[in-house]
Amino acid sequence: KQYRIAVIPGDGIGKEVMPEGLRVLEAAAKKHGVSLHFDHFDFSSWDYYEKHGQMMPDDWKEKIGKHDAIYFGAVGWPAKIPDHVSLWGSLIKFRREFDQYVNLRPVRLMPGVPSPLANRKPGDIDFWVVRENTEGEYSSVGGRMFPDTDREFVTQQTVMTRIGVDRILKFAFELAQSRPKKHLTSATKSNGISITMPYWDERVEAMAKKFPGVKWDKYHIDILTANFVLHPDWFDVVVGSNLFGDILSDLGPACTGTIGIAPSGNINPEGDFPSVFEPVHGSAPDIAGQGIANPIGAIWSGAMMLEHLGEKEAGKSIVDAIERTLAERTLRTKDLGGNADTTACGKAVADMVD
Amino acid sequence: KQYRIAVIPGDGIGKEVMPEGLRVLEAAAKKHGVSLHFDHFDFSSWDYYEKHGQMMPDDWKEKIGKHDAIYFGAVGWPAKIPDHVSLWGSLIKFRREFDQYVNLRPVRLMPGVPSPLANRKPGDIDFWVVRENTEGEYSSVGGRMFPDTDREFVTQQTVMTRIGVDRILKFAFELAQSRPKKHLTSATKSNGISITMPYWDERVEAMAKKFPGVKWDKYHIDILTANFVLHPDWFDVVVGSNLFGDILSDLGPACTGTIGIAPSGNINPEGDFPSVFEPVHGSAPDIAGQGIANPIGAIWSGAMMLEHLGEKEAGKSIVDAIERTLAERTLRTKDLGGNADTTACGKAVADMVD
Ligand SMILES: CC(C)[C@H](C(=O)O)[C@@H](O)C(=O)O
Ligand SMILES: CC(C)[C@H](C(=O)O)[C@@H](O)C(=O)O
Repeated sequence: KQYRIAVIPGDGIGKEVMPEGLRVLEAAAKKHGVSLHFDHFDFSSWDYYEKHGQMMPDDWKEKIGKHDAIYFGAVGWPAKIPDHVSLWGSLIKFRREFDQYVNLRPVRLMPGVPSPLANRKPGDIDFWVVRENTEGEYSSVGGRMFPDTDREFVTQQTVMTRIGVDRILKFAFELAQSRPKKHLTSATKSNGISITMPYWDERVEAMAKKFPGVKWDKYHIDILTANFVLHPDWFDVVVGSNLFGDILSDLGPACTGTIGIAPSGNINPEGDFPSVFEPVHGSAPDIAGQGIANPIGAIWSGAMMLEHLGEKEAGKSIVDAIERTLAERTLRTKDLGGNADTTACGKAVADMVD
Repeated sequence: KQYRIAVIPGDGIGKEVMPEGLRVLEAAAKKHGVSLHFDHFDFSSWDYYEKHGQMMPDDWKEKIGKHDAIYFGAVGWPAKIPDHVSLWGSLIKFRREFDQYVNLRPVRLMPGVPSPLANRKPGDIDFWVVRENTEGEYSSVGGRMFPDTDREFVTQQTVMTRIGVDRILKFAFELAQSRPKKHLTSATKSNGISITMPYWDERVEAMAKKFPGVKWDKYHIDILTANFVLHPDWFDVVVGSNLFGDILSDLGPACTGTIGIAPSGNINPEGDFPSVFEPVHGSAPDIAGQGIANPIGAIWSGAMMLEHLGEKEAGKSIVDAIERTLAERTLRTKDLGGNADTTACGKAVADMVD
């Protein structure tokens, strides 16, 4: 079978890292006999917006909705275009309209990556953050009253649906069950957020009954962030609401020093729509155009894409190649203390794939 | 002037650390000629609940509402009483009904405290988290519909009022202005929480105009938590909503290894109502009754209380004594690698006060 991939580089360093991501994908595909076909799109970018006055063409869903996956660079350029136009006009639109209700990110201490935590070795930290990606705190219900008076207030509703909560929990429990430790941690704040969070807890308890082989626990988000720093070795799969998952999946990579190289998947598990794979970093206007961006976030996202497509071996070969490249000082980019440029680093990883 | 302090030990280790807090307060008061009068109360505890079926007497406001401050231990015992009864029946009631709209917590790397972060020295990290303490995400507006069907959903409104947001920002800007670095950081998430958080940002911008001497910046909460780990030296005063402040004021102390000894103030700046000073740690049922709890969180909270009452010198003498005690290995409790019990540690700090 040939996989059809929609490639969207987007803005800034997105355009610089994607060629390296594609280079490595092609190397892995060749070694493992996987057939990939790439279609390139220029929308979801400031350039496109400048020409067309919108982030994407009206028929964007027809253009990319039938692909097997979407390989994405980065979007946004706050100095030129407000986030709510650029992000809500593309990335968040994908999540909602392609029902990518899982946001999946690894937290892994890699060899050769300087970690801000003391006394942790590669292997000590290795877990996944599973984030609800369509509802919760990112809602569009709310508004403002009595503007410019002392009575002024704004309100925004957090919304959790039975369907929305249950399906993300099911995904997280299944992931936990597939791993050696079979351990799930749920992020809550039911002692403070007194309506939605107790509901989340209730659904976790109900779902847990269907997965008797999975050990589970829960922490309030405040102490959970503390435990990411103090006891990152405690975790295996961590599941949270849209906001809590967002926080944990930046904090986790920060604890392992990998925030610049972390990958992510915005996944529609049923495959009714394509999933989006993108590096966690953004378009980074400050270093765009210099050829020094670290391509590993994009490359690693490519590996997640292959795994999602069912090509586990090919995906794993990329992650292994990343680990070996990171361990060799000279082949890394500046941000990690090496002296390779974006292309040199991408080529190094591609060469390591086997 | 004599200050009248209401003393509420509460539950678990709250009852063990408070005598040490009082011991140190008395030592500092004596040295600095401050007159303190203590009234002791047994409510806001499981013991009281067991006898009376409620956390506090009906006339709790008359009993403690006229005191100059409330010195609090810890409340809660989840195995015996649900959090929403114990916490919402006391601690959160104080915050709301005594309009303690500021929650203030220091984040400081102390000598002799093992920090989970690599390569940080005492002096590198020294900032305050200012948390809105009455509204925001901790609201009581919301509910559930269509229970036990596929249509089931819950909703909870985040509520931000002009009055509520402006007064916490004013407090935070004033605090920043009083410090050498004059730097304020605001926690936002306006790219995802698209109604309330842009409003928060708007009010920050308006308030900043009144404090031209204060440099300010803002970060989305996800990257802000990452920066607490990666660049804790960037911060001076950090202000956030009820939920964001809650998270940051657990994460911050975790980064400095001080979560077990951190203090907090729930402050009504106008003095219309008494403020509550309490250690960040809870009642810790697992170690209660063993006499090994670290009293420094309570002691440090006493120092914050003195500073709030205007007795800066006396307050500072306690913080200095804490620093010197922590630096001496043997006088610390087990949790910090020492071998002193609660009383011995309390006595040691009291002896150091000058
Ligand atoms: C116990 C809980 C309700 C409380 C809060 O979330 O406010 C606590 O975490 C705190 O920070 O004082
Ligand atoms: C850009 C922003 C809206 C987005 C989010 O909050 O979801 C980002 O932080 C992420 O994690 O993908």
